[in-house]
Amino acid sequence: MTNSKSFVANFVTSLNLFCGFLAIVYTSHGNYKLAAIFIIMAAIFDTLDGIIARLLSASSRFGVELDSLSDVVSFGAAPSFLIYKAYTYQFGLPGIIIGSLILIFGAFRLARFNIMVEDLNTKGDFTGLPIPLSALTISTLVFSYSTSSGLNEPFDIFIIPLILLLSFLMVSKVRYNALPKLKNKKIKEKIILFVTLIIALFLAFATNGRILFFIFLSIVLFGIFRHLYFSFFQKIRL
Amino acid sequence: MTNSKSFVANFVTSLNLFCGFLAIVYTSHGNYKLAAIFIIMAAIFDTLDGIIARLLSASSRFGVELDSLSDVVSFGAAPSFLIYKAYTYQFGLPGIIIGSLILIFGAFRLARFNIMVEDLNTKGDFTGLPIPLSALTISTLVFSYSTSSGLNEPFDIFIIPLILLLSFLMVSKVRYNALPKLKNKKIKEKIILFVTLIIALFLAFATNGRILFFIFLSIVLFGIFRHLYFSFFQKIRL
Repeated sequence: MTNSKSFVANFVTSLNLFCGFLAIVYTSHGNYKLAAIFIIMAAIFDTLDGIIARLLSASSRFGVELDSLSDVVSFGAAPSFLIYKAYTYQFGLPGIIIGSLILIFGAFRLARFNIMVEDLNTKGDFTGLPIPLSALTISTLVFSYSTSSGLNEPFDIFIIPLILLLSFLMVSKVRYNALPKLKNKKIKEKIILFVTLIIALFLAFATNGRILFFIFLSIVLFGIFRHLYFSFFQKIRL
Repeated sequence: MTNSKSFVANFVTSLNLFCGFLAIVYTSHGNYKLAAIFIIMAAIFDTLDGIIARLLSASSRFGVELDSLSDVVSFGAAPSFLIYKAYTYQFGLPGIIIGSLILIFGAFRLARFNIMVEDLNTKGDFTGLPIPLSALTISTLVFSYSTSSGLNEPFDIFIIPLILLLSFLMVSKVRYNALPKLKNKKIKEKIILFVTLIIALFLAFATNGRILFFIFLSIVLFGIFRHLYFSFFQKIRL
């Protein structure tokens, strides 16, 4: 549980959790762009801890538990609170409830994932939108299209449909293989994913961040089209 | 995973999570007393979901996972953020780090507990201060001794030592049997604990809340004295 190798991986997981806390703190200061950056950094640490655990052969049951506890804060509580402060606050209690959906459905997604990993030894792609992908879609939208007074027009009107879509997809049967929890993936595939993330970050700086939201939204929508395509294809085969 | 019985228990767990989110929201509005009440309510739902799962014989692996994901938000992120906004914000980055300790060490406590439950089938009392007890100590302090401008004097000077003590106790080997996660406890004991919580709440209203903090602080300190006593006692026996 506490050898020096798994300490390194668990330290990186703690950085994911700490970034989630920083995102909550900067959201409350009204600095939505910085809060969004901390959620993106949490996603980088989340990918990194898995790579480190594999490289050091230090995967542990403790590490897996700590990982999903960190994810529910960084990709559940933090983006829910960000979206509430940047937009849905104006609707009072219904706004709080809508904001909380990302957190509550994200927790359902993580709980379901955790029992699936144990029961089925699933590989590669998983049922439902992964919670980091939901958080990245929200935080890149806020990063690119918000000021200290909240989300910019005309993007603000898309936020409630987007929250409902992401929440539904997390608990749906739609499969995604982009940015899953990667417990059973090979180290090569993990590194490719990590490099992709770094390239995406570079593109973010080059385009002032505006391209990122559309990349993540495309991944989310592609999952739906693929699901519909395979539903149709499998019906033909039967 | 999703029969109607476990749905009821999981709905109550979701109310725990939603109360945690409300605590974060009202902390950001500067309503620290209301935020503290929501953390206390989260603790009530946390006890209640276990009772319901037992009464309906609807304990599930999914429920256990959802429970600890809810706990890290309601008893980790929410009290950390509450303590930051009500007091440690004034110290800048060190204040953020100190505030985050309750969250980070709380997550370590939950991860360790989750693997212990599976490995050892532990009963009754557990190693380390339970995260709800840490959260209740903080939130009852804030409830009784704060205004909208933050913690009252002279209680404010105790908060940093208290944060350090609670964080250390959560990852320590000091044993507690008050308010544990109770996965393996008998239904009778669960109901007794629940009734105790309700009586404590009644006392809270009668004394305007001021007695509660001292009750929880006493439980925390009693654990330390018991640990020291047994360390000494066992040394004599060897």
